Amino acid sequence: MGKERRLGGVAGRSYPLIEDRIQAGIMRHVRAVDRPVSRSELTEHFGVSRSKVSTEVGRLLEGGLLVENGLAESEGGRRSSLLRIPRSAGLVAAVDLGATSIDVALSTLGGELIAHLGEPADIRDGPQRILGRVKELLSGLLGEQSAGPQDVLAIGMGVPGPVEQASGLLRSPPIMPGWNLFPIRDAFAGEYAAPVFIDNDVNVMALGEHWGGVGKGVDNMLFVKIGTGIGGGIIADGRLYRGVQGCAGDIGHICVDPEGPVCTCGNRGCFEAMAAAPAIASKAERCAREGLSPILSEVLSERGELSAKDVGEAAALGDYHALEIIRVSGRVVGRVLATLVSTLNPSLIVIGGGVANIGHALLAEIRSAVYRRSLPLATRNLPIVLSELDQVAGVTGASVLAAEGVLQVPRVSS
Amino acid sequence: MGKERRLGGVAGRSYPLIEDRIQAGIMRHVRAVDRPVSRSELTEHFGVSRSKVSTEVGRLLEGGLLVENGLAESEGGRRSSLLRIPRSAGLVAAVDLGATSIDVALSTLGGELIAHLGEPADIRDGPQRILGRVKELLSGLLGEQSAGPQDVLAIGMGVPGPVEQASGLLRSPPIMPGWNLFPIRDAFAGEYAAPVFIDNDVNVMALGEHWGGVGKGVDNMLFVKIGTGIGGGIIADGRLYRGVQGCAGDIGHICVDPEGPVCTCGNRGCFEAMAAAPAIASKAERCAREGLSPILSEVLSERGELSAKDVGEAAALGDYHALEIIRVSGRVVGRVLATLVSTLNPSLIVIGGGVANIGHALLAEIRSAVYRRSLPLATRNLPIVLSELDQVAGVTGASVLAAEGVLQVPRVSS
Repeated sequence: MGKERRLGGVAGRSYPLIEDRIQAGIMRHVRAVDRPVSRSELTEHFGVSRSKVSTEVGRLLEGGLLVENGLAESEGGRRSSLLRIPRSAGLVAAVDLGATSIDVALSTLGGELIAHLGEPADIRDGPQRILGRVKELLSGLLGEQSAGPQDVLAIGMGVPGPVEQASGLLRSPPIMPGWNLFPIRDAFAGEYAAPVFIDNDVNVMALGEHWGGVGKGVDNMLFVKIGTGIGGGIIADGRLYRGVQGCAGDIGHICVDPEGPVCTCGNRGCFEAMAAAPAIASKAERCAREGLSPILSEVLSERGELSAKDVGEAAALGDYHALEIIRVSGRVVGRVLATLVSTLNPSLIVIGGGVANIGHALLAEIRSAVYRRSLPLATRNLPIVLSELDQVAGVTGASVLAAEGVLQVPRVSS
Repeated sequence: MGKERRLGGVAGRSYPLIEDRIQAGIMRHVRAVDRPVSRSELTEHFGVSRSKVSTEVGRLLEGGLLVENGLAESEGGRRSSLLRIPRSAGLVAAVDLGATSIDVALSTLGGELIAHLGEPADIRDGPQRILGRVKELLSGLLGEQSAGPQDVLAIGMGVPGPVEQASGLLRSPPIMPGWNLFPIRDAFAGEYAAPVFIDNDVNVMALGEHWGGVGKGVDNMLFVKIGTGIGGGIIADGRLYRGVQGCAGDIGHICVDPEGPVCTCGNRGCFEAMAAAPAIASKAERCAREGLSPILSEVLSERGELSAKDVGEAAALGDYHALEIIRVSGRVVGRVLATLVSTLNPSLIVIGGGVANIGHALLAEIRSAVYRRSLPLATRNLPIVLSELDQVAGVTGASVLAAEGVLQVPRVSS
């Protein structure tokens, strides 16, 4: 198995990359601490013998997944050189599919984002066209790095629908016609030897914020995306919590008001039917038609429709009714988040997605509702902040998903 | 450090019991699988060398925490004998404090409950009196087993309030006057050398159901206690999830209806103000006073008050209004649980506490509300069942808390 690896270089890597738990632990530790690491630190960290660590580090060095930092300068025979993951270990490809966008990126195995590209797309075009375009974009990025599919160690992908973890298949995704049970992994199999790891887009964004955003180092956090729909991603005790079918955090259809507006799911008063972008836009349009807000009326008559962004801009200009729409949405979001705070007791809430860009008025209302309706103990030191990574949260998370996936001991499939 | 251990027996054990991660892993694995285990199984399970496993197993055998199963019958020189945790390893003491009860129990380190005793008590009597009585009861149980405090390896305790994990201190517990920041651990320190592990009572019951009840082997489950108050315990990916301040699952004050009745916490329409035992009893009393239910009126005039149990009994006799009160409560519980199902995607919900004993009518209403308001994917194969352990869920969980706590590598305190 390890034979190809000893030939050095990345091309023609064989899988699995990782042969045992200690190797997996070493690679994940070096990745996580994000600085060169000594063998003694690893020995201490894993509580195994120095010789076991040396053996496994030796294998990882042979395979090119680690290098000795500054080896050239060290004295012969010294074993205290530090270990790090070199760029030459290989690349990780990240894909973030949204309802209306494709983002692709490349990062190092160590976790550094080195190239990123995004373009509009319509997920309803179906898997053949969308994945075809994803592969074109990836090829382009790889070409720019003078690399090719053989340099990719793992592919990570976020998709806007529920994903069954074991199979990597989408299960009845509501906004992705044609994708139900589509074998996404197989679509890459011809060109890429690398394994493909797929998860829900919001889970992937939560991973991204946890790895490289405002949630770095925060072991218990909640990421909430408010856009066309609403979803949540839960980091619990340092790990993404997916639940049994992978739909933990799927909070968009929590019932907020049993007498509320009818949701696309058929129930009444769902969270996203009351507070996501379409709800904000439709309230704004009503307001504009009734002549309550001159600013919104003007935009509506110019463009024929309004977006959540228009409401944010009108509010920023001091429009009372626009501000009130935002406040009502913020209160609904805050009330649901208060429930999630009582349930999960996180130490950070990160808000992302298009509606988050409405800005301060929304955030202020959310905060006030959460602090008012949660247990005092749970809101002591509970920052509620906007996503820092914004557009790159998805690809950052997808690369974390891929790197952590390929650096595991593969499970024996039954 | 290991010197006292080599003298054999339990008395005079020194702490920590566990010196390194592999030892901790071995003990916890043998405990969890609940059958004798071979060295090869351990080697394979931990991915470390056979010699490392043999060394650490040797130390655990010397310390008396493991024995070789059937060693007497095995041939000399054979290494294939199985390992198990003997009764002689020592005992675990479990304490479950409720608002109106004390339960104490003894179990083996392996997890077998060997003695249990419960009596009424009033938690408001304060820590001195309550813990004094706990120690008397424990001494009694130990005496019956011809054992003493020196045989106790660890003490686990569930308390009806929020517990800060690091310190083991209660933080402003609403129904426990006099307990705020009381040093519970110190109360045992004179008599017991064993470490004391303390957690919220509902977390402890969740651990109990997960270890020895209907949740055995279920990695993602939610335990909900409905009694005088309402609380939840979350098992996520096989472990108790506590959140940052230890108050994850503290769902009693989730807002169900902003216009609802005023709660003891000062907010309106909290979950427990709408569906816990006092809410059910007060609705029943109103109903009885208005003469709507002859059965409830009779009980009320006899006893001067009604309990949730009375409502359950009246419903079982076919009383329409009693049944309606239960249905309304069940609907509220179901609506909150639907939210928790969307958030956590568990594969099992276990309902315990006094109100759970109302029985089928309540459970049927809860199920129907959860299935109606959750994502279909999340409710596929989601049993909602009553606690099996009932009165012993708390002490079972407290013994798990203690055994798992003492079988860890102690953290270096800063």
